[in-house]
Amino acid sequence: MELDEINLAIIHHLRDGRMPYKKIADSLSLSEGTIRARVKRLKEEGVLDITALIDPDAMPDQSIVMVGVNLKDMDLVKKGEEFSKLRGVISVCVVTGRFDLLLTVLLTKDFNMVKFYTEEVAQLDNVRGVETFVVYKSFNLKVPLPTP
Amino acid sequence: MELDEINLAIIHHLRDGRMPYKKIADSLSLSEGTIRARVKRLKEEGVLDITALIDPDAMPDQSIVMVGVNLKDMDLVKKGEEFSKLRGVISVCVVTGRFDLLLTVLLTKDFNMVKFYTEEVAQLDNVRGVETFVVYKSFNLKVPLPTP
Amino acid sequence: MELDEINLAIIHHLRDGRMPYKKIADSLSLSEGTIRARVKRLKEEGVLDITALIDPDAMPDQSIVMVGVNLKDMDLVKKGEEFSKLRGVISVCVVTGRFDLLLTVLLTKDFNMVKFYTEEVAQLDNVRGVETFVVYKSFNLKVPLPTP
Amino acid sequence: MELDEINLAIIHHLRDGRMPYKKIADSLSLSEGTIRARVKRLKEEGVLDITALIDPDAMPDQSIVMVGVNLKDMDLVKKGEEFSKLRGVISVCVVTGRFDLLLTVLLTKDFNMVKFYTEEVAQLDNVRGVETFVVYKSFNLKVPLPTP
Amino acid sequence: MELDEINLAIIHHLRDGRMPYKKIADSLSLSEGTIRARVKRLKEEGVLDITALIDPDAMPDQSIVMVGVNLKDMDLVKKGEEFSKLRGVISVCVVTGRFDLLLTVLLTKDFNMVKFYTEEVAQLDNVRGVETFVVYKSFNLKVPLPTP
Amino acid sequence: MELDEINLAIIHHLRDGRMPYKKIADSLSLSEGTIRARVKRLKEEGVLDITALIDPDAMPDQSIVMVGVNLKDMDLVKKGEEFSKLRGVISVCVVTGRFDLLLTVLLTKDFNMVKFYTEEVAQLDNVRGVETFVVYKSFNLKVPLPTP
Amino acid sequence: MELDEINLAIIHHLRDGRMPYKKIADSLSLSEGTIRARVKRLKEEGVLDITALIDPDAMPDQSIVMVGVNLKDMDLVKKGEEFSKLRGVISVCVVTGRFDLLLTVLLTKDFNMVKFYTEEVAQLDNVRGVETFVVYKSFNLKVPLPTP
Amino acid sequence: MELDEINLAIIHHLRDGRMPYKKIADSLSLSEGTIRARVKRLKEEGVLDITALIDPDAMPDQSIVMVGVNLKDMDLVKKGEEFSKLRGVISVCVVTGRFDLLLTVLLTKDFNMVKFYTEEVAQLDNVRGVETFVVYKSFNLKVPLPTP
Repeated sequence: MELDEINLAIIHHLRDGRMPYKKIADSLSLSEGTIRARVKRLKEEGVLDITALIDPDAMPDQSIVMVGVNLKDMDLVKKGEEFSKLRGVISVCVVTGRFDLLLTVLLTKDFNMVKFYTEEVAQLDNVRGVETFVVYKSFNLKVPLPTP
Repeated sequence: MELDEINLAIIHHLRDGRMPYKKIADSLSLSEGTIRARVKRLKEEGVLDITALIDPDAMPDQSIVMVGVNLKDMDLVKKGEEFSKLRGVISVCVVTGRFDLLLTVLLTKDFNMVKFYTEEVAQLDNVRGVETFVVYKSFNLKVPLPTP
Repeated sequence: MELDEINLAIIHHLRDGRMPYKKIADSLSLSEGTIRARVKRLKEEGVLDITALIDPDAMPDQSIVMVGVNLKDMDLVKKGEEFSKLRGVISVCVVTGRFDLLLTVLLTKDFNMVKFYTEEVAQLDNVRGVETFVVYKSFNLKVPLPTP
Repeated sequence: MELDEINLAIIHHLRDGRMPYKKIADSLSLSEGTIRARVKRLKEEGVLDITALIDPDAMPDQSIVMVGVNLKDMDLVKKGEEFSKLRGVISVCVVTGRFDLLLTVLLTKDFNMVKFYTEEVAQLDNVRGVETFVVYKSFNLKVPLPTP
Repeated sequence: MELDEINLAIIHHLRDGRMPYKKIADSLSLSEGTIRARVKRLKEEGVLDITALIDPDAMPDQSIVMVGVNLKDMDLVKKGEEFSKLRGVISVCVVTGRFDLLLTVLLTKDFNMVKFYTEEVAQLDNVRGVETFVVYKSFNLKVPLPTP
Repeated sequence: MELDEINLAIIHHLRDGRMPYKKIADSLSLSEGTIRARVKRLKEEGVLDITALIDPDAMPDQSIVMVGVNLKDMDLVKKGEEFSKLRGVISVCVVTGRFDLLLTVLLTKDFNMVKFYTEEVAQLDNVRGVETFVVYKSFNLKVPLPTP
Repeated sequence: MELDEINLAIIHHLRDGRMPYKKIADSLSLSEGTIRARVKRLKEEGVLDITALIDPDAMPDQSIVMVGVNLKDMDLVKKGEEFSKLRGVISVCVVTGRFDLLLTVLLTKDFNMVKFYTEEVAQLDNVRGVETFVVYKSFNLKVPLPTP
Repeated sequence: MELDEINLAIIHHLRDGRMPYKKIADSLSLSEGTIRARVKRLKEEGVLDITALIDPDAMPDQSIVMVGVNLKDMDLVKKGEEFSKLRGVISVCVVTGRFDLLLTVLLTKDFNMVKFYTEEVAQLDNVRGVETFVVYKSFNLKVPLPTP
């Protein structure tokens, strides 16, 4: 989907995610309905997300790990999508360099590293190896609340 | 800051970042003022963020790279904070494993990899080495719009 | 098993493994029978171990190696348990990072590295690679006496 | 210190660390005083240790990490000894292979990874790099109780 | 094919690829026909190439990546030849060291990294892993124009 | 420099580097002078190169090595340029991934690896490490003739 | 085979491999026959070798490479023996660390790296990867003359 | 030094290091004096060595390690020579790949790894790191007897 000048301007105002559409409309000399319709469409297209994110340090029973993954085949994109559907996986990046994929994973007291690997990752085939990086301090990292 | 049951419930409702406070208040049998006050405080404490995020694939002139950093000293937290203030750096994770830090960096046409390394990273001392992973496809990765 | 305050206090006294139960009982204002019963239960549950450990440097014909193991699948916990039953293996850690498992292994004149790999490790399937670290000097490392 | 036949036999009996010296003495046809004196000397020489060890999984607020260390100079033994005196360090192995030292470290809620690196390791000079392996499951690993 | 003194001299003159054969002939006291015939034969044997190369920085929609490849078998030369026939691959080097092959690949807007891996490299079997190095600045690197 | 449609078309014809300008002009309905002027300018700008390249396998006393370089600072571009001026260096790529630079180097009987490292690379400061890949077979790799 | 004091003394004299047995016998107050018999037996047992070795730098068409090998299984000793029988392989070491085997290989003009890998190593199964180190200068390295 | 046809033939006969010069002379239709003179000169030039080598497995108190060395500067040849003079070092190879030097070192009961690193290697400056490979089984590896 094309991000035209107006969409970019709207998104720019939405850095404060609660900014009233009325205010954005006035600032851009557009109707509130236009703003609302465009935001709706951007969300439907999967381009835009307005959501609450929290600092992982604020939840002691929750931790973030990054996982470098190497695959046995070159089906990087399909495999990336499969990983993105595993429980706990926040996002998946297909990357250049010594890893094929870099995952961001949210672990909790009830869904720990052992469970992530033995119940989730073990379901996928063609995984050559994984290398976990435990995040023990972060700056400006904000993540969604895990599903209870 | 303590995330009590009520705060967690509010944040849970705010998975839709535009959810009216009135609706959250009704659902939790609290007043709209309480919701508003708690959200305000959570944001002031830096625990909560409600903001527009976009799919990096929607902006062709923008790209995301992850950077593994190794440092020359053990001042990991202070150095992590310094990296978090560099132009382009979205977040910094202090991690276990073969890297000391893992950065997420947003590059644009006008702020490319050469500029990031020679104008930004070069300012910091005690960097032993960097290893860049270019993200060329992602799933569920959403990033803030770069400052124009 | 829950380690309550009393159990922790008992274990704390048992830093000297030969400390008479009577003395521990007096110090904690409990009966000697209580101490004995609790220690018995902690040992039965596999939580507590009171045993002689020796400095590996004191036995010239014995040596310690650490082994980083990478596996072909994600059955990390089950595989970790299998490794823990091999001859010579003192302990197994399932770890994050470039290895999947880190073993501590005790070798002797009659049970050397060749035997460990060709007779023991070779029995297990799904081992992708091993990397041995020979310990040639140690501090505060104490290990059990090998079974003759 | 020489571990003669008798000392080895005594240590062998002490696999049960609470075994009465009387019983060991009878089994070896020696006097209880001889056993006691030999054990005392072995402990004084730092060769023998009889102490309570616990399964780290039994203490949820405590975790074990292994740390691979690379040094800037070849003063491996002196540096190994320095590491062994840092808070949290259980044992230090000077090893062959891609690391110079392998540490076993005990972290607690109040003494976490950030503190270990910024308050303890940062004191030592000539550290070229560290690589942490978080132990998230273990078999037969037993460690001393941390000092409160 | 043997590169004799005369061929070397001709090639030396052709550092300027447009140098008239007449001029080369005069300089080497040979006939223009001899030069023309020798150049023709060198090109037919695949030893000599006279072609336009461009600086990749001059084409913003085009980028160069180097790819380190590890193979599952030792059929290095045959596999190297297979890689050399993939779309986008400029050259293939069979190398010593941590990689088996080093590729130079030309990507364009319409033929990006995802396509290269999922449509081209995925066709080849016995590829153990790939590691991509994105060239983001170069000196004296000149590459052929990609086929439209 | 902008590569407009006409320049791209000219370069496309120059895949055969000896293609007469007259023929290119006719094919593009331009005058021969225009072609000549544009080629001249492209060469002066350093964008276009028309030169003889040879298959390194045809010269037994010459060999190609690729060198991965890691630097001590982030002055990647300046250092890349310095490397590009060393004897034997054909091209320099500033890259993402485990190396900072990837060099292509041409060695001869009289200018071997020892000379390259001790006489050339040793002149440059801030080099953290080098890793050489010897090319022992290549496909479509063509390099300029070394200066005698 | 036991290397007793006398054998060690004989071997010590044979640091000069041409030392007359008579002279060794006199020096050790033994008969020449004893020396001759013992040397014969040591050679037959494969413990002792007296042979001409040459500096590889003295033969321009010959080169030495070291090869790190990783295997797919733990049959290290059997595989090591198989490698030792390949053409060009001077010696095989089964080692700890990042490689499983370290080979010393002698290449010649007629038996180059391509031949070694595609004709020799390719015969062996269960080879996970190889990493070649080309020796381009050596000190005190002496190797046997290759079989013509 | 030039290894002419005759020298090569002589060395070829000396694969049995004790072969009488008379026999070699007859076989090559030369005088015994010529053989003797040529061998003498080859030895003086450091090209040829005829010496007793032993299988390291035959001496239980002796072990061989290979050491990969990385240097801080490019003075590879000078540093290689320095390493070759350290106690215990049998040979030094300056190599391409992930290490700069590969050493073969002979350790004994009285000259162990700790001594080699802290007393010998520690003397040399500009060593960035070492990685030791312990040889625990070998094929066709023969080494000189260590100086008592």
